[in-house]
Amino acid sequence: MTIDSEFAARIRDSFSRQGLMRTLGARIVELDAGRVVVELPFAEGLTQHNGYFHAAASAAIADTAGGYAAYSTMRPPDDVLAVEFKINLLRPAVGERLTAEAAVLKTGRTLTVCQITVRAWQGEQATVVAVMTQTNIRIRKGDSPPSADTIRKGDSHPSAGTGEAEG
Amino acid sequence: MTIDSEFAARIRDSFSRQGLMRTLGARIVELDAGRVVVELPFAEGLTQHNGYFHAAASAAIADTAGGYAAYSTMRPPDDVLAVEFKINLLRPAVGERLTAEAAVLKTGRTLTVCQITVRAWQGEQATVVAVMTQTNIRIRKGDSPPSADTIRKGDSHPSAGTGEAEG
Amino acid sequence: MTIDSEFAARIRDSFSRQGLMRTLGARIVELDAGRVVVELPFAEGLTQHNGYFHAAASAAIADTAGGYAAYSTMRPPDDVLAVEFKINLLRPAVGERLTAEAAVLKTGRTLTVCQITVRAWQGEQATVVAVMTQTNIRIRKGDSPPSADTIRKGDSHPSAGTGEAEG
Amino acid sequence: MTIDSEFAARIRDSFSRQGLMRTLGARIVELDAGRVVVELPFAEGLTQHNGYFHAAASAAIADTAGGYAAYSTMRPPDDVLAVEFKINLLRPAVGERLTAEAAVLKTGRTLTVCQITVRAWQGEQATVVAVMTQTNIRIRKGDSPPSADTIRKGDSHPSAGTGEAEG
Repeated sequence: MTIDSEFAARIRDSFSRQGLMRTLGARIVELDAGRVVVELPFAEGLTQHNGYFHAAASAAIADTAGGYAAYSTMRPPDDVLAVEFKINLLRPAVGERLTAEAAVLKTGRTLTVCQITVRAWQGEQATVVAVMTQTNIRIRKGDSPPSADTIRKGDSHPSAGTGEAEG
Repeated sequence: MTIDSEFAARIRDSFSRQGLMRTLGARIVELDAGRVVVELPFAEGLTQHNGYFHAAASAAIADTAGGYAAYSTMRPPDDVLAVEFKINLLRPAVGERLTAEAAVLKTGRTLTVCQITVRAWQGEQATVVAVMTQTNIRIRKGDSPPSADTIRKGDSHPSAGTGEAEG
Repeated sequence: MTIDSEFAARIRDSFSRQGLMRTLGARIVELDAGRVVVELPFAEGLTQHNGYFHAAASAAIADTAGGYAAYSTMRPPDDVLAVEFKINLLRPAVGERLTAEAAVLKTGRTLTVCQITVRAWQGEQATVVAVMTQTNIRIRKGDSPPSADTIRKGDSHPSAGTGEAEG
Repeated sequence: MTIDSEFAARIRDSFSRQGLMRTLGARIVELDAGRVVVELPFAEGLTQHNGYFHAAASAAIADTAGGYAAYSTMRPPDDVLAVEFKINLLRPAVGERLTAEAAVLKTGRTLTVCQITVRAWQGEQATVVAVMTQTNIRIRKGDSPPSADTIRKGDSHPSAGTGEAEG
């Protein structure tokens, strides 16, 4: 299922605002309703102590792919936040690049659950190196979490007051 | 419980080889046997789309703190790899810095389980923003996973043959 | 913090309707706001193939203790459902009885996260055998999930239509 | 892939020793190498407070199906224990029966990871109500955990001494 170009542009714009994805060098390579693939080329700056991809690099692109897969099933002005995820690191993440392929397992009024498969690639050969299950919560307009700026300035707001990741 | 300075130096050296920690700007701020704290100052390059710390930034330092907490209970030449972790993102990670404080819940012959608490700091005020449970496997000398270089060169080795994250 | 006796009675009544708790032989032994302990005496009917408590027996009382700990922070007519949990089985669950002690880690408008510790007891000596992290969703009046009877009779209802564990 | 009848008999025998499966009324309905399906007919004694299957009933058959799927890839005298599992409860588990279908995601020298899908059935119509990811550890002869009897009698043994679920 495809999504319209306006919504695709909105998702890509949101992704481009993720400083961490830019820092890691990740990019969206596939984008459909309920299915997103994020790619991450190998770099020395992404390694753990043995020289292969850090588990957190796998987790980072898996979490992001899952979040956008969930978001791709919604419509603005709804937004989405991950509330939990679990990753099994099946094999050392060694290769020229990683991909995280996210699929929506269940869409709900409030929660959307995604499964994400992380693969390491050597040329055209892929190995599954990790699997993630992730739960996302829908943030509706009016109960969106505050921007970081707002919080840093110390303004009070409902979310800070009640301490909710959910907004 | 403290650990001897030689082992502390070894852990810090291992941490310094983690390209991802350098990229993120994380550092070890406390280091004892079974307890490690990793700190991460805020930077635009660590954000998600709303401008606060990306969930994967929390996960990255939590995973690393847990891994070294597990490692701190072992002795060379043993090494350690995370095999799975689960994180609950309780509140938006907004602040000047994050800390991930890892404690060993259970040390085993093969598996070591850690619990990690991630806090966001504004000055001296901390808020718990995430909790992680993580399972690590002990890698014994002789069954350590190959270096990334070895694998990239295509050499055969037991781990590649059996496809084990566990070595 | 204690809860009023009317609410305590309501929780105990809810627990008594849990057929599975009756089948297993579990009971609530402590009940406060945000803290619940469920106990399960050993029986041959609770074992796995080596003769000690089945991991699912630990999970069952942990899940239930967590659900009621979450519920104890709410007020009728709100209800609660677990949406996910994760358990680490640290040691063989061997003993005369198990207890699952649940504490609320974070209460939110929508989601409440609990941590539960499962202990095996020999006389007065306890061993931690498992830890669980669990996420619960608040069900508000009007969007409560249908009763099993309703669904079995094939009546339509919002939850069946949208397929939500969340109601 | 099928498994030989002797090994199938051994698995069924092990299952029959699981007191909890007997108590719940579960049975193995499919058994192949790396794939096991466990079925659980509805009963009032399996319910949560709203009258449908308790989440722990889903978890119980999922955990057991996963454990035997892992075991089915090994050979005696190896044994297997779950070390952790994570379940997402996607929808209310309402139906005449549940099935838990386990598949091995990765077999390792030490750890075997399974994914399990739990479905609720009304006649021939199935709904996915939960998904589990589970990690199992291989127990080799000589480091198998003690029987419950041994522990209850207070005999010392390596596992009790070091407190390992892993044996």
